[in-house]
Amino acid sequence: MIDFQTDPSRYKHWRIEIDGDVASLIMDVDPQGGLTEGYELKLNSYDLGVDIELNDAVQRLRFEHPEVRAVVIKSGKDNVFCAGANIRMLGKATHGHKVNFCKFTNETRLAIEDASENSKQIYLTAVNGSCAGGGYELALATEHIMLVDDRRSTVSLPETPLLAVLPGTGGLTRVTDKRKVRRDRADFFCSTEEGLRGAKAVEWKLVDETVPSSKWNDAVKARAREIAKKSDRPSGAKGIKLAPLDRKIDSGRISYSHVEVEIDRDKSIATITVRGPAVPPPSSVEAAHQLGGAFWPLAMARELEDAILHLRTNEAAINLLVFKTEGDPQVVLAYDDFLLEAGDDWLMREIRHYLKRVLKRLDVTPKSMMALIEPGSCFAGTLAELAFAADRSVMLVGNREGDNKKPATVTLSRANFGPYPMGNGLTRLQTRFLDDDKALKAAEDKIGQPLEAEAADELGLVTFAYEDFDWDDELRVMMEERASFSPDALTGMEANLRFAGPETMETKIFGRLTAWQNWIFQRPNAIGEQGALKLYGSGVKPAFNKERV
Amino acid sequence: MIDFQTDPSRYKHWRIEIDGDVASLIMDVDPQGGLTEGYELKLNSYDLGVDIELNDAVQRLRFEHPEVRAVVIKSGKDNVFCAGANIRMLGKATHGHKVNFCKFTNETRLAIEDASENSKQIYLTAVNGSCAGGGYELALATEHIMLVDDRRSTVSLPETPLLAVLPGTGGLTRVTDKRKVRRDRADFFCSTEEGLRGAKAVEWKLVDETVPSSKWNDAVKARAREIAKKSDRPSGAKGIKLAPLDRKIDSGRISYSHVEVEIDRDKSIATITVRGPAVPPPSSVEAAHQLGGAFWPLAMARELEDAILHLRTNEAAINLLVFKTEGDPQVVLAYDDFLLEAGDDWLMREIRHYLKRVLKRLDVTPKSMMALIEPGSCFAGTLAELAFAADRSVMLVGNREGDNKKPATVTLSRANFGPYPMGNGLTRLQTRFLDDDKALKAAEDKIGQPLEAEAADELGLVTFAYEDFDWDDELRVMMEERASFSPDALTGMEANLRFAGPETMETKIFGRLTAWQNWIFQRPNAIGEQGALKLYGSGVKPAFNKERV
Repeated sequence: MIDFQTDPSRYKHWRIEIDGDVASLIMDVDPQGGLTEGYELKLNSYDLGVDIELNDAVQRLRFEHPEVRAVVIKSGKDNVFCAGANIRMLGKATHGHKVNFCKFTNETRLAIEDASENSKQIYLTAVNGSCAGGGYELALATEHIMLVDDRRSTVSLPETPLLAVLPGTGGLTRVTDKRKVRRDRADFFCSTEEGLRGAKAVEWKLVDETVPSSKWNDAVKARAREIAKKSDRPSGAKGIKLAPLDRKIDSGRISYSHVEVEIDRDKSIATITVRGPAVPPPSSVEAAHQLGGAFWPLAMARELEDAILHLRTNEAAINLLVFKTEGDPQVVLAYDDFLLEAGDDWLMREIRHYLKRVLKRLDVTPKSMMALIEPGSCFAGTLAELAFAADRSVMLVGNREGDNKKPATVTLSRANFGPYPMGNGLTRLQTRFLDDDKALKAAEDKIGQPLEAEAADELGLVTFAYEDFDWDDELRVMMEERASFSPDALTGMEANLRFAGPETMETKIFGRLTAWQNWIFQRPNAIGEQGALKLYGSGVKPAFNKERV
Repeated sequence: MIDFQTDPSRYKHWRIEIDGDVASLIMDVDPQGGLTEGYELKLNSYDLGVDIELNDAVQRLRFEHPEVRAVVIKSGKDNVFCAGANIRMLGKATHGHKVNFCKFTNETRLAIEDASENSKQIYLTAVNGSCAGGGYELALATEHIMLVDDRRSTVSLPETPLLAVLPGTGGLTRVTDKRKVRRDRADFFCSTEEGLRGAKAVEWKLVDETVPSSKWNDAVKARAREIAKKSDRPSGAKGIKLAPLDRKIDSGRISYSHVEVEIDRDKSIATITVRGPAVPPPSSVEAAHQLGGAFWPLAMARELEDAILHLRTNEAAINLLVFKTEGDPQVVLAYDDFLLEAGDDWLMREIRHYLKRVLKRLDVTPKSMMALIEPGSCFAGTLAELAFAADRSVMLVGNREGDNKKPATVTLSRANFGPYPMGNGLTRLQTRFLDDDKALKAAEDKIGQPLEAEAADELGLVTFAYEDFDWDDELRVMMEERASFSPDALTGMEANLRFAGPETMETKIFGRLTAWQNWIFQRPNAIGEQGALKLYGSGVKPAFNKERV
């Protein structure tokens, strides 16, 4: 099992050093510390384990260190910044592992950009040595790239010439769409093994500045301080501790405080039940700070995120995620109000953005998703986003026979109209009602009103509403049918249908770039016995089928 | 060899019937008329041959029939509109053929949309029978879909449930982004083999109207007449004849009047030389009409298009297209002025949009492209777009030793700033200078001025400028290097780098949707011995590897 939970005391590959309002995030990969056997993580090359620590570090800096305003990513090794993803690892990995690894890495890169933009914990990269492939892709995710001018250190994306794959963790897209490198120069750069350095790297917009070795340390410090000044993070605030999750993993069940995952491998279904808050929101923002990691929205988000990552990585044969909720919708709505009314408070802001990121992980999860809205559920506000993220939602009309719970409702809150945009920049409801402002407005007019099945259906908020006597049969057929389809076709279908409307750098990375990389990751020219990825480092030249497809 | 040239006298599968300002484009596929052996085109299913005729028909309607303002696509068979792409054909096809076929089909669908939008030859579909998969994708490419309400006829996208592939010729994207079908409904529709019909199909926006059988013919006629009224096409104009191309194909060379293709299979290079016009533009628009298919921009566009399609389909192992031009830049510019000043003239408008479409075919051609700008060339205005479409352009500084031709120039015209947008909605220069309005403006200020290498380089219009003594070596290395890379990695790299900036429905189709389909087209769940595409029609159920990737 691959575990996404860690903490700095267990890091093998990263160090966090904090100096006033500037943190250094130092990559110093332990060559022997690979996630599995069979490869050495030389030259600061990385595997999923290294990225799990990075993800944890980025997250903790946001929550545990409100005082940090700028984060410098640097290398703890001499003459090498980072050699990118470990090729031996990629050469041995299954197709599924490669794809999962790239997705998580992309999510972490986007989390870094989200921290710079929305937490004003602004990232820069100090490239003090060769910086290749995924190493440069990591640098691209930061807002400012400094390159030491020692006549040796270069930035490069050598994937195409060396490995017959793409700079697929955002590289190609960020080069053209973020850094706005001219496309013909990007073509040259991405097909040049040795990369670029010095003035040309600056002129081509690949880095922001070069600095002579002699002035390097001072220049990095000065730049970080300057960038820190642009941040609006509070001074004197106290971070909260992200304590280890309360989690119990059995063969067919994962239990957290607020999230329960039931795994039915025969049916390829995992049912994720999110429990609403047991108590009303605290009396003040200060009291919420006191609760820290125990504050329901944060605790729930951490548990849900862990469950999603676990299911993606460790339960590949699970095809369908069924979302359920349990609790009092009014209390969920009270937390939404609390979070939104806290406005500028740094911690509440962090929590809102974190909920956004967790929900985005759902959008790119390669599993079908269905929400079941039943009596006793609390699909309200933030939790209603689970239903809007799902490929379908099904709602029970009225009561179940012999059950005296009140009929199920969906209740909207302001949380459904802004704070949780998808990767395409739209809210899930905007994406749902793409050309239909009237429908969107009609939904907005119902904020705060519990909507029973007929009303929710009328407003277009659920896919189907079934009466009790149809419910079991309809769902059984729907789920059996879904399980009978090709998992690949479903993944492709969902990756297209979930992102209607505008595309952004983020959706381009997960759509266009990822899809092409996945294609290439299957091609004999990369992974065949004579493929470049397979033969890398062996001294044997790859043999390509020359046909262009 | 697959030939993309045809004409109505040779059609096996389509008929064009014209009644006043309405044309009917009738699909009546000859089951025995497949492009290759081994499958029957039953139930109006299609292969590349059927699509080649459709592409020809769409093109001829625009040029040969200015009087036609609305085009009704209908079926010539009872009870079936179109069953989509032929599955036996797909099951037997190589990966390369499948990808090529889908690309050409997508281009034809987009040409239909271009005709509706820009030629005001507006397409509608009269679905008088079952309309499945690619059949419905064809209907989606038209502006209005009518469905007969006979309690049997349905529209459907059964690819995922039946075949384990995607509705990949635009289907998924057009359902969400063009017709704005709600994403959860799209999910249901695209996973429902039997499709939808009647009022529900209208409510879900899958079709625009249903009509009872008894009123069908009259309703289709009336709707077509009504749609024709929205067109601005001229009355009383006379079409021009698209005569067979003047083309000679040898093993290593394809010669047209204005285009020459030299194929070097050892080096995997095809050199495409476009010759500028031999004579100045005609004295008037009327005279250009008289010239018809012999008018240089039109003749050149047809030849270049045929060359591109030929190389894509019949020369898969050619990796690199080298563009050269020959002629007088001033005469090319005179034609640009002529075309742009003709404003509303229907034929000049057609030619401008056709040039746009031909250049777009380059953008999605899976081959590396390099433009060589040498003395004697005429990279001016429209022909300079070849250099901007290329992945790189290389320009010779000054003269070649022993050659008294004047130094090469690049000259911009208004044609580089508007009439030929790429699929992303931007011109090639806008895409090139994505965030750099100043650079774009600086280029625009030079319209009409011949720019020698240094000036062109300074303005960012070429990738590299080399002196004569470096030229041969630099190019040799560059081309050898390109030929040594994995063709798949290059295809993926180029598909990402060529489309910086905004995404549109068109780039989503060629980027996101196509890439996922290509991925799926390689997966064992589709094409393995037990895959759904392989086993379709055999009565044997496919066996899927259940892991989600």
